[in-house]
Amino acid sequence: MTARTHVLAIGNALVDVITTAEPAFLAERGIAKGSMRLIGPDEAETLYAAMGPGREISGGSAANTVAGVAALGGSSAFVGRVANDQLGKVFAHDIRAAGVGFTTAPSANGNPTGRCLIVVTPDGDRTMNTYLGACQELSAADLDAASVAAADILYLEGYLWDPPAPRDAMRKAIAVARANGRKVAFTLSDVFCVEGHRADFRMLLEGHVDLMFGNENEVRSLYQTDDLEAAMAEMARHACIAVITRSEKGAIVLEGGRRHEVPGEAVARVVDTTGAGDMFAGGFMAAMAEGRALPDCARVGCIAAAEVISHYGARPEADLKALVKAKLG
Amino acid sequence: MTARTHVLAIGNALVDVITTAEPAFLAERGIAKGSMRLIGPDEAETLYAAMGPGREISGGSAANTVAGVAALGGSSAFVGRVANDQLGKVFAHDIRAAGVGFTTAPSANGNPTGRCLIVVTPDGDRTMNTYLGACQELSAADLDAASVAAADILYLEGYLWDPPAPRDAMRKAIAVARANGRKVAFTLSDVFCVEGHRADFRMLLEGHVDLMFGNENEVRSLYQTDDLEAAMAEMARHACIAVITRSEKGAIVLEGGRRHEVPGEAVARVVDTTGAGDMFAGGFMAAMAEGRALPDCARVGCIAAAEVISHYGARPEADLKALVKAKLG
Repeated sequence: MTARTHVLAIGNALVDVITTAEPAFLAERGIAKGSMRLIGPDEAETLYAAMGPGREISGGSAANTVAGVAALGGSSAFVGRVANDQLGKVFAHDIRAAGVGFTTAPSANGNPTGRCLIVVTPDGDRTMNTYLGACQELSAADLDAASVAAADILYLEGYLWDPPAPRDAMRKAIAVARANGRKVAFTLSDVFCVEGHRADFRMLLEGHVDLMFGNENEVRSLYQTDDLEAAMAEMARHACIAVITRSEKGAIVLEGGRRHEVPGEAVARVVDTTGAGDMFAGGFMAAMAEGRALPDCARVGCIAAAEVISHYGARPEADLKALVKAKLG
Repeated sequence: MTARTHVLAIGNALVDVITTAEPAFLAERGIAKGSMRLIGPDEAETLYAAMGPGREISGGSAANTVAGVAALGGSSAFVGRVANDQLGKVFAHDIRAAGVGFTTAPSANGNPTGRCLIVVTPDGDRTMNTYLGACQELSAADLDAASVAAADILYLEGYLWDPPAPRDAMRKAIAVARANGRKVAFTLSDVFCVEGHRADFRMLLEGHVDLMFGNENEVRSLYQTDDLEAAMAEMARHACIAVITRSEKGAIVLEGGRRHEVPGEAVARVVDTTGAGDMFAGGFMAAMAEGRALPDCARVGCIAAAEVISHYGARPEADLKALVKAKLG
């Protein structure tokens, strides 16, 4: 008997390597500040050698999200591939220690565990350079259909739509979830992902997604318009619930013709914005699992996001449950 | 021609794995809060499995110290052994990126890179559980005598006196330094080290050490007395310069019959005391290299220590040079 969970996520299993630098470090290398891009093993070596001292903290977008769900008391599981190496052991330890179920077998050989080389500039902005490594070796064979069927929400990250084998795994998972009457949630992840897979993402939205997360730029890019209102209207035509995150301005939730706007949470000092969107989605879904109303789901998302950007690393450090209780009861 | 450096340190090459927990986590396992203890590979596995999510940040006592020297503009080098694995690459990257020369070859096989499992309690106190791994494989053959001869100060950590091969390497280094008219500095490291090697440490102090660092408990333990004044007087009879650190109360410097007391630096919030003593020693020696007077050397040590305890991890994050300039000019 597979235990019921609130959220099962499929995503990249990454360890973040976080350093700080001035924007010139990025400009000199032609790296767009604030972006996410994929890099190969050689560039990963070269860039790492040029980077300052680092902190290694487990990351991965959807993995961060389910760590957030768990921190808020929801039950969650993660599917993603690490290698059988030290960073893989770090990832597996950290996600299990966060209270997330994680049983995907590590790859026995092949690429090392994936990592994300993150440069944080003094404004708190993060620029991510991702070497996927073993992440790409996830395949449909790694999916346990019973676990997918036992999760209220299947959560998928757009980042993982890029490599073909994991994409097949996500397609299979969507079919299992829908066949079992479960909800499917999807995050657009990054403008880079939307640009690379616009047709797929639109098709997903039109036929298969109950809950869609994206920030303003991603939503505009999805519908190739500068008009955010027009893009949101189009998104709302398809997703049961569309959630548009707006950084410090909070979020907009669109559902069945209703529109809820919630303000952002004040943050004393933005240290590192890595994981803000991930933690928003985690907070939102954990609040849904508690049966909160949609505006409060967005508020919980904003509270969780505010916590994670107040320190280095994309996993929560403070007691999120207590933070939410203090603000929303 | 070997370049002259201010400080060459020999120490454990460790990556810290930092987690937070309530004191009960330690009490339940019979681990003395605030201590350092050595653990084997099996206990390292068991304890890690029980620990919460971690942050991996390069550490190692003497390595932290020379990272502090470099952050303050001094030239420094480190000798210590990692394995040829991912954590070893992390350690090597981080210390070089900090501006410290590091050329010790990684061990080709044998134990993995050493790590220190650190539990930080809500009061900021750190409890360290060290698996030495490859650190123990350092031997006298790894020492480059020319590099030792080219360093103004040879800095040794008491922690590394425990395993026999590195101890031999340190003894050889002391002989080289003294034959070349260089200074030898030594840190008592921990009461556990003093208790295990009291006779050796006293002998070192009586014959070979120019600059001795220790905290109040270590100095008392060295002379097996509860009377700090008596212990300090005994220490001052031997070391050219004896420096006693006193946490938030600052430090006492004894030199040729003179006694200088400097106050501690105020810290808004003590997050993680790991590395406080290491960074004090780094600040002290960097200030010596600049020709500052001894009381100011201790002040610089306190400023550097205050920075490192205000965040997780034992390596400096803020601009130490700017902090010192703002306070001392």
